[in-house]
Parts: sequence; C-alpha cells; structure tokens
Amino acid sequence: MVILGVDPSFTATGYAVIKKELGKQFLISCGFIPLPSNKKMEERIGIFYDYFKKIIEQHKVTHLALETPFLGKNAQTFLKLGYLRGCLHLLAYQHTLYVLEYSPKEIKLAVTGFGAAAKDQVQRVVHMLFPGLSYQKTFDVTDAIAISLCGAWQQNII
Amino acid sequence: MVILGVDPSFTATGYAVIKKELGKQFLISCGFIPLPSNKKMEERIGIFYDYFKKIIEQHKVTHLALETPFLGKNAQTFLKLGYLRGCLHLLAYQHTLYVLEYSPKEIKLAVTGFGAAAKDQVQRVVHMLFPGLSYQKTFDVTDAIAISLCGAWQQNII
Repeated sequence: MVILGVDPSFTATGYAVIKKELGKQFLISCGFIPLPSNKKMEERIGIFYDYFKKIIEQHKVTHLALETPFLGKNAQTFLKLGYLRGCLHLLAYQHTLYVLEYSPKEIKLAVTGFGAAAKDQVQRVVHMLFPGLSYQKTFDVTDAIAISLCGAWQQNII
Repeated sequence: MVILGVDPSFTATGYAVIKKELGKQFLISCGFIPLPSNKKMEERIGIFYDYFKKIIEQHKVTHLALETPFLGKNAQTFLKLGYLRGCLHLLAYQHTLYVLEYSPKEIKLAVTGFGAAAKDQVQRVVHMLFPGLSYQKTFDVTDAIAISLCGAWQQNII
C-alpha cells in the first residue's frame, strides 16, 4: 500500500508518499510544488498534472488521500482548487488508485488525537513520527504527511 | 480556427465544435455527455476527459471557449464544476489550445444582442443561425453553441 497525500493549492501544493509495510509507515517522499503565478492557468495545471503523474508512476502509488475542502472567503479560489482536485481524480482514474477523502477534523483527530488541533500541533506530531524530517518543512508538507498518515491508519481499521 | 465550446456540468455537459473559414461559421459537431451518477467521481471525470480528448483530436480543435461560472446555491457543486474545468484546462495545455473565457452576459450579448437574454432566446437565435439543428437539442447544447459562436465572433474583432 503506497499512499499519496496531497494538499492542493495554487500557492504551494504539499504532498507526501507513505508506504505501509507490515503495519509500519515509511515516508518515501515529500515536498511541495510551487505553481508559478506568472504562467497561464492551463500551464500551471499542466505542470501540476505532469508532476503528480511522475510521482505516481515512480513510487507505484496505490491510494490517493485528500482532505475535504470547505468554501473559504473566495468562491473563485474554491473553484480553482477544484481544477487541481479534478486533475488528481483524473490521475486516480488513469492509474486505478483508490481515492480516500477525510475531513480536516478526521485528519487532526487521527494524527494528534484532537479534532480541533492547530496546524503547528499537527506539525509537531509529524516531526515526532518522522524524526528525519527537516524542520524547514512548511505546513503544506506536514499537512500532506498528516493526510497520508490518516489514510494509512484508517485503511488499517477497514 | 476550430472552436470547442463547452458548458460543463455533472448532470449533462453540452459541447459544440465550430469551424471558422473565410469569415463563415460551420457547426461541425455538437451534443451532450451524460455522466452516469452511479459511477465514482474519478470514473466520471475519466469519461469526461477521454471524451473531450477524442473530440479535440478528431476535429483538430485550436481554441477552447468557456463561460465564467458564478457561485450558485451549492458550494460543493461549484467545487465539482472546477473538477471538469480543470480537465478542460489540462486538455488545453496538452493540445496547446487557446483558452477563451466569456461571462454569461458577454455570450448573450454576442448572440442575441441583449446581455440579459433568457435561455430560450439564446436557443431561438442558435436555431435561426443553424437551421439544420434538431429541435430536440437541450439548452446544454444550444448554450455550448452560443459559447463557441461568441468565441468565433470575438476572435474576429481582435
């Protein structure tokens, strides 16, 4: 089971690939993709799609984990978030990945034991679980690790 | 210049392919794609993507025309509309299409001469312009034809 967790955004998309073997989780890869704001929308989407296509193929991803988004202040930002999620769903279809989706509360609860945890609490737990992780990692990355972890743990229960 | 106009929706996506030659517009193809609601999200997106990939290649499409969407009552529907638009932008990137986007008002104004025209007014004008068009065509299709036409005419001005 190889889970790709993604926290998509046009500002910086965080991602993490976690492999689950014999009940243990290994962080295979993580990082974030900045999508150059000076490029046209279709180019940014193309960069995003190509990047994740490579990640999925390289790490033989089997599951895609996402967080349920909620409408913020800006409806157009929400629509554009849909563009990125649409690409991820398309990749799931093209590579026959299982799609897992969790609410922010479920993810926080799974990782910190507290559904209303702050972002830095999530980050602290992620660093405890993966001590090798550089402290420079932004929330985008630690959030994506939390999403992947939630997927890895939840799939255990089922 | 071959324009693909799309009015995406998970209920029924209308589309039209219009070819512009020597200042004249020819309706090459039009129709709608129902996305089976009993299938998983990623499958529906896959069907949508594959369908338009074929249309673009078959008709050697050069331009993609879309309508600017506005947030309706349901934010989740708006997000999911983003999934389909994201796929179209990705196809535009993969086939180097120019992306044209118009507000509903611009489209109505271009086609009927009245920015606040009703859907059936748009439909009537579309039927007048393309008398061969079957009267069974739904609004999804006539709206998509209107989007393509707006693209064809606007590109004339520029």
